Amino acid sequence: MTDLDTLSVNTVRGLCMDAVQKAQSGHPGTPMGIAPVAYTLWQRFLRFDPQDPIWPNRDRFVLSEGHASTLLWSLLHLTGVRAVDPDYEVLGRPAVTLDDLKSFRQLGSRCPGHPEYRWTSGVEATTGPLGQGVADSVGMAMAGRWLAARYNREGFPLFDFDVYALAGDGCMMEGVASEAASLAGHQQLSNLCWIYDSNRVTIEGHTSLTFTEDVAARFLAYGWNVTTVADANDLDAVARAFHTFRAETERPTLVLVHSHIGYGSPVEDSPKAHGAPFGADGVRATKRFLGLREDEQFWIPEGVRDWFGQGIGARGAQLRTAWEKQFDAYRAAWPELADELERMQRRELPAGWDSKLPDFPADPKGLATRDSSAQVLNALAQSVPWLLGGSADLAPSTKTHLTFDGAGDFQPESPSGRNLHLGIREHAAAAVANGMALTKLRPYWSGFLIFSDYAKAAIRLSALMEIPVVHIFTHDSIGVGEDGPTHQPVEQLAGLRAMPGLLVFRPGDAGEVVETWRLVAGLRHEPAALVLSRQALPTLDRTRLAAASGVAHGAYVLADPPSGEPQVILLATGSEVSLALAARDELAADGIGARVVSMPCWELFDRQPREYRDQVLPPAVTARVGIEQASTFGWDRYVGDGGAVVGMHTYGASAPLKQLLTKFGFTPQRVAEVARELVESRQEART
Amino acid sequence: MTDLDTLSVNTVRGLCMDAVQKAQSGHPGTPMGIAPVAYTLWQRFLRFDPQDPIWPNRDRFVLSEGHASTLLWSLLHLTGVRAVDPDYEVLGRPAVTLDDLKSFRQLGSRCPGHPEYRWTSGVEATTGPLGQGVADSVGMAMAGRWLAARYNREGFPLFDFDVYALAGDGCMMEGVASEAASLAGHQQLSNLCWIYDSNRVTIEGHTSLTFTEDVAARFLAYGWNVTTVADANDLDAVARAFHTFRAETERPTLVLVHSHIGYGSPVEDSPKAHGAPFGADGVRATKRFLGLREDEQFWIPEGVRDWFGQGIGARGAQLRTAWEKQFDAYRAAWPELADELERMQRRELPAGWDSKLPDFPADPKGLATRDSSAQVLNALAQSVPWLLGGSADLAPSTKTHLTFDGAGDFQPESPSGRNLHLGIREHAAAAVANGMALTKLRPYWSGFLIFSDYAKAAIRLSALMEIPVVHIFTHDSIGVGEDGPTHQPVEQLAGLRAMPGLLVFRPGDAGEVVETWRLVAGLRHEPAALVLSRQALPTLDRTRLAAASGVAHGAYVLADPPSGEPQVILLATGSEVSLALAARDELAADGIGARVVSMPCWELFDRQPREYRDQVLPPAVTARVGIEQASTFGWDRYVGDGGAVVGMHTYGASAPLKQLLTKFGFTPQRVAEVARELVESRQEART
Repeated sequence: MTDLDTLSVNTVRGLCMDAVQKAQSGHPGTPMGIAPVAYTLWQRFLRFDPQDPIWPNRDRFVLSEGHASTLLWSLLHLTGVRAVDPDYEVLGRPAVTLDDLKSFRQLGSRCPGHPEYRWTSGVEATTGPLGQGVADSVGMAMAGRWLAARYNREGFPLFDFDVYALAGDGCMMEGVASEAASLAGHQQLSNLCWIYDSNRVTIEGHTSLTFTEDVAARFLAYGWNVTTVADANDLDAVARAFHTFRAETERPTLVLVHSHIGYGSPVEDSPKAHGAPFGADGVRATKRFLGLREDEQFWIPEGVRDWFGQGIGARGAQLRTAWEKQFDAYRAAWPELADELERMQRRELPAGWDSKLPDFPADPKGLATRDSSAQVLNALAQSVPWLLGGSADLAPSTKTHLTFDGAGDFQPESPSGRNLHLGIREHAAAAVANGMALTKLRPYWSGFLIFSDYAKAAIRLSALMEIPVVHIFTHDSIGVGEDGPTHQPVEQLAGLRAMPGLLVFRPGDAGEVVETWRLVAGLRHEPAALVLSRQALPTLDRTRLAAASGVAHGAYVLADPPSGEPQVILLATGSEVSLALAARDELAADGIGARVVSMPCWELFDRQPREYRDQVLPPAVTARVGIEQASTFGWDRYVGDGGAVVGMHTYGASAPLKQLLTKFGFTPQRVAEVARELVESRQEART
Repeated sequence: MTDLDTLSVNTVRGLCMDAVQKAQSGHPGTPMGIAPVAYTLWQRFLRFDPQDPIWPNRDRFVLSEGHASTLLWSLLHLTGVRAVDPDYEVLGRPAVTLDDLKSFRQLGSRCPGHPEYRWTSGVEATTGPLGQGVADSVGMAMAGRWLAARYNREGFPLFDFDVYALAGDGCMMEGVASEAASLAGHQQLSNLCWIYDSNRVTIEGHTSLTFTEDVAARFLAYGWNVTTVADANDLDAVARAFHTFRAETERPTLVLVHSHIGYGSPVEDSPKAHGAPFGADGVRATKRFLGLREDEQFWIPEGVRDWFGQGIGARGAQLRTAWEKQFDAYRAAWPELADELERMQRRELPAGWDSKLPDFPADPKGLATRDSSAQVLNALAQSVPWLLGGSADLAPSTKTHLTFDGAGDFQPESPSGRNLHLGIREHAAAAVANGMALTKLRPYWSGFLIFSDYAKAAIRLSALMEIPVVHIFTHDSIGVGEDGPTHQPVEQLAGLRAMPGLLVFRPGDAGEVVETWRLVAGLRHEPAALVLSRQALPTLDRTRLAAASGVAHGAYVLADPPSGEPQVILLATGSEVSLALAARDELAADGIGARVVSMPCWELFDRQPREYRDQVLPPAVTARVGIEQASTFGWDRYVGDGGAVVGMHTYGASAPLKQLLTKFGFTPQRVAEVARELVESRQEART
């Protein structure tokens, strides 16, 4: 340990304290305790070049205890990490200026309360909701394995990066982290290191109040390597732990570090250190203890920046430039693979990516949208080599298995496999997909729509991070049938639609499934949820109906009355699109002209110009019936004041689907009846 | 092991196979493998009287692997469990008839696809979504501890029941189960026994695909006792394991049972056994192997019913009648405690339960609704001794700690405590509350609204089970301020409102908080979500505004223009109610008359007669502005086609609240501007 080591650690601590104190808001305790560990990792181990924070083979550092954001902001500032623009160009300006640090938690600062991906470069994942960062890191480590397996060649170890995640007691308690740790152990991710910042203090008090398990033993049970650091301030011990991690070749490593929340402050080891500034006196006292200038704020001692430059800076630059040189030679030898990598890094697709998409001929019997999606996904995956994913143990039901030659299973002995077995762990499954997307792969994961509830927090993060994860949810309604209300989603669609930044697609037939995937494949900064049926749906005859390419507008006129203006509009999604068409025929027999609007993606429809929306849903036609086997919540926007919704008002029931359709009113007769009443009430009003 | 043991086990297996075969739907594999264990538990250990399946001191059996429902249906039928009506009267008729079994998974059968609480008596919890049942069981065991601590007296061990949960590989993988197991270990719940039905087969294949951790070691790390049964068919070994559990006094017990999915069938040990009928030939072959009549379906051999009657039936009846006799003496000695217990069992409140509710005088500065709720909760809890709960490590922030003398902490050494420390485990927290409510306590748990996402699946189950859990969510909007978008809920309100059977309250001031709790306290079969502010809200002057008792109608007219009909209606909830009042003043200055409607509970408003709803929102007044710091999704129902919503369309941002209010348009000026535009556009349209 050198003086500059100590000074650097304490400089970081000073910046963290000062930022929180100035903001009068934040979490100073955690950075104070764990700063020496983060410092040692960055300065001595992390293979990361501040000059190019998106270098593909960089080691990843995920701050899973995101409330300690000042720790990250300080390191990004002191190491001089450069900013990156939203399209992945590295810019000349710093990611975090001293002014940003000084405006911690103020509007527009690059130092918000918690790390936000795509807002501050150097942030590998948005964190704060506990357990998410560590779970993401498992996806990153799996992505690293996969990239190495696919792209590395003799003499060209393009990918060998490690993934570090710093986690606190909270992360260790969250179920999503347990799920992810179990999966990481199974996958033998020796490129993964979790640092458990065990300060034994949470908001309610000492962990002895509720968290007395033996965490090290638990991780050993998961198949991890566990090493302990008795004192976070012992930089040599910390370094030995990281060496232990690096030497491990078969297991992920947990570095269990005993630390002191609020180290050096008057509130050390107290819950008071967690979420409030130390106060001016507290900050001064702490600085005195640490040997910092008591009355100077945001003090960066002479030599500290240089020291970081000689450590992480020099090492990172050397590694990155060597890598780039290697990549130039690689490009010459394997131009196609290099092209893949370059496209992937820009979130672009290979040329001809949509050339193999299937056509589905009209077929009254049709097939389930989970089945048509399976065909489209398999076609796409053959053209987009870095499209990969799996299921939370439901692949035979969700039909997301890639079945073509060479797709293979992703396992420790076959890391180039593209089928992931994520286990009955929906929450980790979504988070792992997030981690893979953060590593620029195009991941999907699948489960039953009802179980999207288990993964909700991770799905939200995919939207907040603006990463193109594909969440595939089948068994999308009471169409589940006999499994009953525990397995029949009702309110899940509304919940997903209410989520900003998530595109929710519920295609109505195989044709719409193709168009949905075409749109989803092209997304660069938005996640999508695909909501698919268990039961067969007719493949519509597009020679007699509008083309499925209307999906791109979110909603489109599928069919109009043979003549005259429509008297009523039937709006439907998914399995109810065919039902609407059948109801239209019923109505036609009564001389009532009905338009059918298919609405596979409300979010896209809402983005259309008013002119288009009014074409699809003419304001003059107020007799409108929304039809969806889901909560009616949210439908009023489209059916309007005069409209009606045939939807679910209660939970479902266990019975064969046909019986349920009758019980809950999803029959052409019932829909036609509702529509007829609306039309007649208007005629009466006029006479 | 006697012949009747074997015959009984195989009779259960036969019924399970036949039910699935007849329904052509279901999960036969799990019951075949684990039937001997369930049989041994019920027949030899479970202290349960089929004649009174709601006897308060019964042992609880939770089928956490709910897809094995035929196992439970068979046992309920064979042991002759009686039906119970929705108001907890035991009826003469059986809970499950042979016809119910024969109509497994058909509409109206008492044997639905998964166990449904309150639909079939003998079902202790609705299960199917994996991990939930075991997590519920932790709440039940905690409730047992609490009941014993409060009500047992020297010579009157009223409560000493055990809680058993049967779980499969899926439950063991789910994070919610990990969280609950960690908590159970901390709480040293020696009255809790999880049976891990380890058949090592899941839907995608062998658990070796993804689940290779050492489960026994993991549970030892949680502080559990672990005992293993090498062969599920070895009834003596199974019995020894349950004796081991009973002998354990300091730890919960995991009985790890090695079993064979689809035991005895042609698909034994194959994923094919999981979710599809064996087929007629398969069923016949299995029956042959088991020594059952090959060509008879739903065969119940002579003597089997009697055998159950001599086992669980006789034991249960003896225990229950002895308990009732004991309770008669107890009632004489401690009439008040007995009265509590009797009310609790009927989900009623004590007399005078609302006598201590506070009044909040008008106060422009006011207080946060989390703070007023804290006062009301503490008052209520003093009158309702079995109202208890805790927080997912956020009590100092959610203010749900009971602070009165004697409230105490619930810990192994103080099981009468009423403050639970649930840890940073939101999902388990909600499930534990479910388990406590299933044991007839009145539990609440609290967290930040954003983290309701983590607990979504368990919240849903509280609604599906119709149990009066109170989910308390504070930090309910961008009002969170500096913590930023990871901590600012946006779409959570919409997601909860879309959930059938959940009452979502977002009170606008302390007065509404009191009325909210008054309603919530009286709920018997509905859960509620309380959505509360972090920041102070003015306490409204009810002498000048409508009384807060309007909360009972879900929405009510808070204020009208001093004279004339309103030209515009401002609809708001929570922190935006005061904002609406301020905007009303702005509009009045412009000569525009505005009505302010407070809408704390949409679900209750939707239940009002049309007449009332039209009084509050007169159809003629189409200029309406909804105001809520949340996703606008769902508001169209109330603002109508001509309305506008001042709400959130994106995620929030990290900044002090004042800056955020301006950024996102939550100022009186902005609201008034939107309202003014609506009024003016109508005036223009008329001229």
